[in-house]
Amino acid sequence: MKIAVLGTGGGARCHIAKLAGLGHEVHVGTRDPEATLARTEPDMMGTPPFKDFLAEHPGITLHTFGEAAAASDGLVINGIDGHNAVAALSAIAGRLAGKTLADYAVPYIYNPDIERPWPTPWGVNPILDPCDSDSLGEQIQRALPATKVVKAFVTQEQATVVDPKSIGGGDHTMFVAGEDSGAKQQVTDLLTSYGWSDVLDLGGIVAARGMEMYAHMHGAIGFALGFGTHFGIKVVR
Amino acid sequence: MKIAVLGTGGGARCHIAKLAGLGHEVHVGTRDPEATLARTEPDMMGTPPFKDFLAEHPGITLHTFGEAAAASDGLVINGIDGHNAVAALSAIAGRLAGKTLADYAVPYIYNPDIERPWPTPWGVNPILDPCDSDSLGEQIQRALPATKVVKAFVTQEQATVVDPKSIGGGDHTMFVAGEDSGAKQQVTDLLTSYGWSDVLDLGGIVAARGMEMYAHMHGAIGFALGFGTHFGIKVVR
Repeated sequence: MKIAVLGTGGGARCHIAKLAGLGHEVHVGTRDPEATLARTEPDMMGTPPFKDFLAEHPGITLHTFGEAAAASDGLVINGIDGHNAVAALSAIAGRLAGKTLADYAVPYIYNPDIERPWPTPWGVNPILDPCDSDSLGEQIQRALPATKVVKAFVTQEQATVVDPKSIGGGDHTMFVAGEDSGAKQQVTDLLTSYGWSDVLDLGGIVAARGMEMYAHMHGAIGFALGFGTHFGIKVVR
Repeated sequence: MKIAVLGTGGGARCHIAKLAGLGHEVHVGTRDPEATLARTEPDMMGTPPFKDFLAEHPGITLHTFGEAAAASDGLVINGIDGHNAVAALSAIAGRLAGKTLADYAVPYIYNPDIERPWPTPWGVNPILDPCDSDSLGEQIQRALPATKVVKAFVTQEQATVVDPKSIGGGDHTMFVAGEDSGAKQQVTDLLTSYGWSDVLDLGGIVAARGMEMYAHMHGAIGFALGFGTHFGIKVVR
């Protein structure tokens, strides 16, 4: 398949490398391809320059967000950070029309001026906006009514989403939510090709609220286990 | 041990019956014992009258909230609904001083006049207040500075909290959070006596935010599996 991945950060690279390894034609979107390729230093998260990543993964094409979305034959993965996702995706709404958009963004706000940050033992955590009575997944779906938005991948690190068997033999649970059953099946098929055997459909895109709000629990579990420990959650029934 | 359980609802009864079965002296607190005993009809959740429950579980004493807390020799379980918990517990702060308070309340707001309820496939879900930048667990700890608050039990149905082996052989994860290590150990010991083998300490009471916010995810999973399906979550690492 021709699959587009929007974003060049660490999470997006997990999908890009995995999809290329599975034999897909991967079209990567970034705001400004020239600027992305010009970078020679790691970013603030310590992620190496994308140029180095491309050199190690031949056959991947870098485009603008819109060009990458247009090159997809049906599936687009959104790896644009939560704070910028709605604006960036709205700008290419026409290119995303009719396509499935798998979204794993968390609507974190890192603004140090927020009124009540979350003071944790491991520093100050961001807050979520939207939260509780709305979600980023729903905002994206409202902004792109012709696109089939599927919230997915959001409850784990992307390194383990693309390699579920790296944890506990792979016996953990991935969740999908969205309004279109066919689109959810498309994302579920992708997950199956990644190695997932337990994908749970949580219903409509409204379930993105719980999935995104799980971010704080995920952070707390990660801190409890020790940073760098990979983990997933299994729905035991 | 002499253990107090505050509340007479379905969740509280799970703990009351289990603790009595384990040989503890159980002191149950309610706002107005006479009114509680006078009820002869099931409540709005379909829970039978408490009088019937007491008849089936001899040796359990019903008190006011304050009397029950005073009768505990160290451990109190809070089963008062989230909306009323801070006020009801603050009113008996002296009786709870020095004791461990295991709290599993979710700060749901069921007010039908809320501005943005959560319209789900299964109806309208409540919203959480506080949420994201504060939690009920923290509110209770701030209101009762002399009490050792431990957020626990909140990520599952109480019927499965007291009987973890009823699901998947018991291999799932329970979480505790709070400021006092001894109190968390006390609650962990109780959980061990319930049959838990995987209790994860998430750190300070601030982690109650993620634990309470998991409620929406829990609801969505429950709906996906079908109402009445018992389930837990296992942190797979």
